[in-house]
Amino acid sequence: MKLLKAQPLYDEKIQHLSASLTRRPRRLAVVRFEDNPGNAAYLKGIQTTADKIGMSVEVIDASPNEALETVERLNYDATIHGILIFRPLPPSINEQALNLAIDPNKDVDCMNPLNSAKLYMGDTSGFVPLAPKASMELLHYYGYTLQGKNCVIVNHSNVVGKPLAMLLLAEGATVTICHDKTVDLKAYTQKADFVFTATGQSEYFDGSYFKDGAVAIDIGIARSASGKLTGDLKSQTLDLLEAYSPVPGGIGSLTSLMLLESIVNR
Amino acid sequence: MKLLKAQPLYDEKIQHLSASLTRRPRRLAVVRFEDNPGNAAYLKGIQTTADKIGMSVEVIDASPNEALETVERLNYDATIHGILIFRPLPPSINEQALNLAIDPNKDVDCMNPLNSAKLYMGDTSGFVPLAPKASMELLHYYGYTLQGKNCVIVNHSNVVGKPLAMLLLAEGATVTICHDKTVDLKAYTQKADFVFTATGQSEYFDGSYFKDGAVAIDIGIARSASGKLTGDLKSQTLDLLEAYSPVPGGIGSLTSLMLLESIVNR
Repeated sequence: MKLLKAQPLYDEKIQHLSASLTRRPRRLAVVRFEDNPGNAAYLKGIQTTADKIGMSVEVIDASPNEALETVERLNYDATIHGILIFRPLPPSINEQALNLAIDPNKDVDCMNPLNSAKLYMGDTSGFVPLAPKASMELLHYYGYTLQGKNCVIVNHSNVVGKPLAMLLLAEGATVTICHDKTVDLKAYTQKADFVFTATGQSEYFDGSYFKDGAVAIDIGIARSASGKLTGDLKSQTLDLLEAYSPVPGGIGSLTSLMLLESIVNR
Repeated sequence: MKLLKAQPLYDEKIQHLSASLTRRPRRLAVVRFEDNPGNAAYLKGIQTTADKIGMSVEVIDASPNEALETVERLNYDATIHGILIFRPLPPSINEQALNLAIDPNKDVDCMNPLNSAKLYMGDTSGFVPLAPKASMELLHYYGYTLQGKNCVIVNHSNVVGKPLAMLLLAEGATVTICHDKTVDLKAYTQKADFVFTATGQSEYFDGSYFKDGAVAIDIGIARSASGKLTGDLKSQTLDLLEAYSPVPGGIGSLTSLMLLESIVNR
């Protein structure tokens, strides 16, 4: 049983992105409407990663009534290459209008519906939600191909399950989307070559959910009853798996870096 | 074994739409860039249905270089409530630009990416591709509910498989999307409560693909070797099914009417 650790892929990307940014500087704008512990932790993660690769980050503290004009200014600012708006938004902001206002070419968080539609139509070349993208890249890094494979996703959200389904379909996988209304989840996961879990239920999946030789990608993150940071997988019971991605040290450790990478690669 | 005939649903809709259009007239604009037998047959189907419910249809013959201005004129014309552009477009037209130009509120064919994105995000209240919508309505008409059901779609196109998956997810179904790269298709369809087929391969599916008591929705249409119009299902071998939709007389006979209905219901 193999651990699909993100570290070597992370290191490789850091090296590649640093070199690329030396030749061609890029700048990310982060827009926040309030400063709270969640935002602060997210920003710190981005800032730390940006420092490693030498990308500059501009943080803009905006008031809700300046939201649209802030985004429009950043759209037209040629020194800004990516725009990230911290969520959730204050209730006074029209989220739909704001998402539409983001220049699709700077929309690192894939919030403009034109970017969602692009992915939905099978074009995976644009901005793509990060956890799904990280899942695919981690599998590719470890040499897995998905064509014709039985892939089961346990999540049907707009930021994980659905975009991941689109990425898998684009590679020729057969995709099943499960969720909280699925009856007999095991009947699906036990047949799967690849299982992608994002339930956020600490250590929900033990070995009985998988067939011999399956690969599991753990996109969940939660605190266990004892306060430990865990994923969806109950790691000590997964001996029959061919491989799985750990938490921490798996998908979650790639997303900030891949957000920045999406700006560099354009 | 029950035939899910479209006729009673069709008749019910005709009655309802006729009454509604008497109170509140609506008009569809059809834009075509050439007159060929395919277009002529499609238009005749729409025109016949429109006549039955008393909707007026304006046919606009446009040249490719007037495409955008034609669409913009129709967007602003308050007497036009729906815009349908015949496809495929001549190669000189920028399809992406034209799709984006269609007012999302008149986009009966669900071609503007904003309408695709809306559906992808789980909002099924807008314009939705017609064969998926007809499939859901036919099932509802015959009293089926989808929540928690094992639903297998054999098609992953942007006009059938993917939008149908979104409609099924929105009703709480567990959805598997199969296609030409799927290995061992029977392993999926034999487990399914509902199978939706759109391969366009005449009479491809015999009874061996289904479990006892399954329901099949046939979205395929093709000519058999003998020239007969058939669906994907080999009807004479389907005795173990609980029900299936016939071809002709099933999904295909609803789509023109549902296109017009989507204008009325706004």
